[in-house]
Amino acid sequence: MNIQTLKGFRDFLAADTKKRQYVMTTLRKVFESYGFEPLETPTLEYEELLAGKYGDEGDKLMYKFEDNGKRGVAMRYDLTVPLSRVVAQYQNTLPTPFKRYQMQSVWRADNTQKGRFREFTQCDIDIVASTSALSDAETVSVIQECLTKLGFKNTKILLNDRSIFEGLPIAAITAIDKLEKIGEDGVCDELVERNITKSREEAYNLLQSITQKQPTEKLNEIFTTLERLGIAKENYSFSPTLARGLDYYTGLIFEIKSPDYPYGSLGGGGRYDNLIGMFLPTGRQGANRQIPAVGGSFGLDRIIEAMEALDLFPKELNEASAKVLVTIFNRELEPKSLELASRLREVPSGTSRSSKNINVEIWLDPDSKMEKQLKYADTKGIPYVVILGPEEVEKNVITLKNLKTREQKQLPLDELVKELLQ
Amino acid sequence: MNIQTLKGFRDFLAADTKKRQYVMTTLRKVFESYGFEPLETPTLEYEELLAGKYGDEGDKLMYKFEDNGKRGVAMRYDLTVPLSRVVAQYQNTLPTPFKRYQMQSVWRADNTQKGRFREFTQCDIDIVASTSALSDAETVSVIQECLTKLGFKNTKILLNDRSIFEGLPIAAITAIDKLEKIGEDGVCDELVERNITKSREEAYNLLQSITQKQPTEKLNEIFTTLERLGIAKENYSFSPTLARGLDYYTGLIFEIKSPDYPYGSLGGGGRYDNLIGMFLPTGRQGANRQIPAVGGSFGLDRIIEAMEALDLFPKELNEASAKVLVTIFNRELEPKSLELASRLREVPSGTSRSSKNINVEIWLDPDSKMEKQLKYADTKGIPYVVILGPEEVEKNVITLKNLKTREQKQLPLDELVKELLQ
Repeated sequence: MNIQTLKGFRDFLAADTKKRQYVMTTLRKVFESYGFEPLETPTLEYEELLAGKYGDEGDKLMYKFEDNGKRGVAMRYDLTVPLSRVVAQYQNTLPTPFKRYQMQSVWRADNTQKGRFREFTQCDIDIVASTSALSDAETVSVIQECLTKLGFKNTKILLNDRSIFEGLPIAAITAIDKLEKIGEDGVCDELVERNITKSREEAYNLLQSITQKQPTEKLNEIFTTLERLGIAKENYSFSPTLARGLDYYTGLIFEIKSPDYPYGSLGGGGRYDNLIGMFLPTGRQGANRQIPAVGGSFGLDRIIEAMEALDLFPKELNEASAKVLVTIFNRELEPKSLELASRLREVPSGTSRSSKNINVEIWLDPDSKMEKQLKYADTKGIPYVVILGPEEVEKNVITLKNLKTREQKQLPLDELVKELLQ
Repeated sequence: MNIQTLKGFRDFLAADTKKRQYVMTTLRKVFESYGFEPLETPTLEYEELLAGKYGDEGDKLMYKFEDNGKRGVAMRYDLTVPLSRVVAQYQNTLPTPFKRYQMQSVWRADNTQKGRFREFTQCDIDIVASTSALSDAETVSVIQECLTKLGFKNTKILLNDRSIFEGLPIAAITAIDKLEKIGEDGVCDELVERNITKSREEAYNLLQSITQKQPTEKLNEIFTTLERLGIAKENYSFSPTLARGLDYYTGLIFEIKSPDYPYGSLGGGGRYDNLIGMFLPTGRQGANRQIPAVGGSFGLDRIIEAMEALDLFPKELNEASAKVLVTIFNRELEPKSLELASRLREVPSGTSRSSKNINVEIWLDPDSKMEKQLKYADTKGIPYVVILGPEEVEKNVITLKNLKTREQKQLPLDELVKELLQ
């Protein structure tokens, strides 16, 4: 039997899961503080719903199969198509504009040698059915607020307007998108190779003309709104060569860069006014109706990688969930230790430190040596252990051992509680 | 194009997702307060890992297919087999005992007419590598603490020991497990039909003999430990006819009943000392080594159904994420409204109400009529709206409208903040 995970799939043990929870909880709070509401959609959708929505590449990388009922089904490939289906399916009951966030796994059978995973989590916000510069600016400012709350300091959100490329074929946009990666020469080579320009000189001139473009009127309106929303100017800038690969963008596009973590963008997004309408039933009144939308997305893995590199996670995440291990001295004294554990767990959470409770783990085997118990706490990263032996019982105290400093002292219960609440 | 969800699959819109988050956050806190650490495993596993682990029924209901790399893969069917794989795969690095919780979706192509879903979430805790009565009792007490924290009042955890059925075939245990559903007569019928007993009389006697059985020694030890852990006696009881369908249990078994919500159990669990060893590689030192384990599981859907029926969800969950909608009077006054929104969002969270922030949604279209904005807040369940028109600007106040009471008043900013923080 193969007891491995599949290539490109991962187990998340305690430390990793806690980091994921921390990031998602932080994002959730910010999203909700701006009035975005949560959405979860199924892992499987009808294949026909997803097919053809992500280009040939997407159809190739999609996990799809026939279910027991002979239905063609496919696993979630992104969060935008499911959102579009939800908007189409519940269009008469959803509030307008519809602001939702969604943090779920997606699956792509991508080449794992590129360091990509086949199961990964996206964290998206979108505003559906609003065309205002304010909704564009709000999307960007929510993204900025998330970065701030996660602890990022020097990030910059690059902004551009897709209409700056009007008249250029998508292949040209894709080439220009690589400017940062492959440089001017590389882009010019590609423009010639793909027959977009006839000569290198023409390619160079095209690139120069784009580099010198000014923000569109809409973009200027977005910049003004960002200022009014209190977003610091050093956190965003106009980038006329920012292109973004996906071909469904119709207006604002943006990407989050971190000079401290120059291994790709932390996320991005943009306006896509023509995509959702595709999902409206044809032949009815709503067919081919435009439903404008703007959204942004974080890749959870990239965010976590960057936060690890920049040391942005709170130290507690590396500790065990339990703050203290209540050891068991022997079978006879087990009841004393159980009683102590219950008492510590009952510490009223209505004190000034309000939501703080003491997370208490109890050693589960009354026949273990104390050494084994201490080693367990150490391995697991539990910061404190308490010991209740015959001596402690007689003196009506508890021994508290700090596993980091190796200090230990004997305390009465109320002082123990105080120490553990610190 | 089919814009429906697949049969047995569900979208969770705002209200449902919030309930799911609320329950899972509550469970997570309790699990961690007892030292259980989180684990997440992949959606897809090698099919051979899952095949044959859930009986013929399981193999039939499993979502499985061949991936692009011609690997036989299957979607997570429960959380116990993935746990077993993790224990086998990381056995040298995991702490012992290994206490983990896991809350993830599983997929079963079940008959949806029974009101079952094909994608649903399980919330499991397990203690691996401990045989003590204390680990059995801790599992039960964590379950009880979860019920308490979720607000359940009259639940009862029924306990039994699988060894009470020693010598009986699994078919007999399965029949007895139906006692509550089909009654004594039904069970006796089934015992005869399945040739477990020769006559109805014999069947009746068998059933009677089981009903009159006393707790095993181990079970008595568990009861004593539960008492020491401070679990109230009315919250659990011995039930000699409790059998539980799964055939891998080896000791303690338990099920959570709620007399207030008599539509099946809220969860259950038990000890399974022989299952995990199956996943150890054969031919090596560890092959066929027993790895004892005990665990419990909540079905998220059942918990949510019961909590809805018993009205246990906090009222706020039915409100929007935003506490207040900042309306936009007109394009000219948009900057004033944006400034107000920023100010409200910046309310220092370091006050006495500490973690409380004001969630502020801003209306996104500067050209909308006020009526439309108020209706939006109403539809979405945002409790307050604020209005900043020319009159307010001149008087240096803000109009606050409570959408529940329809009261409205004009206030200066600092009083507005106070009202909204309440």
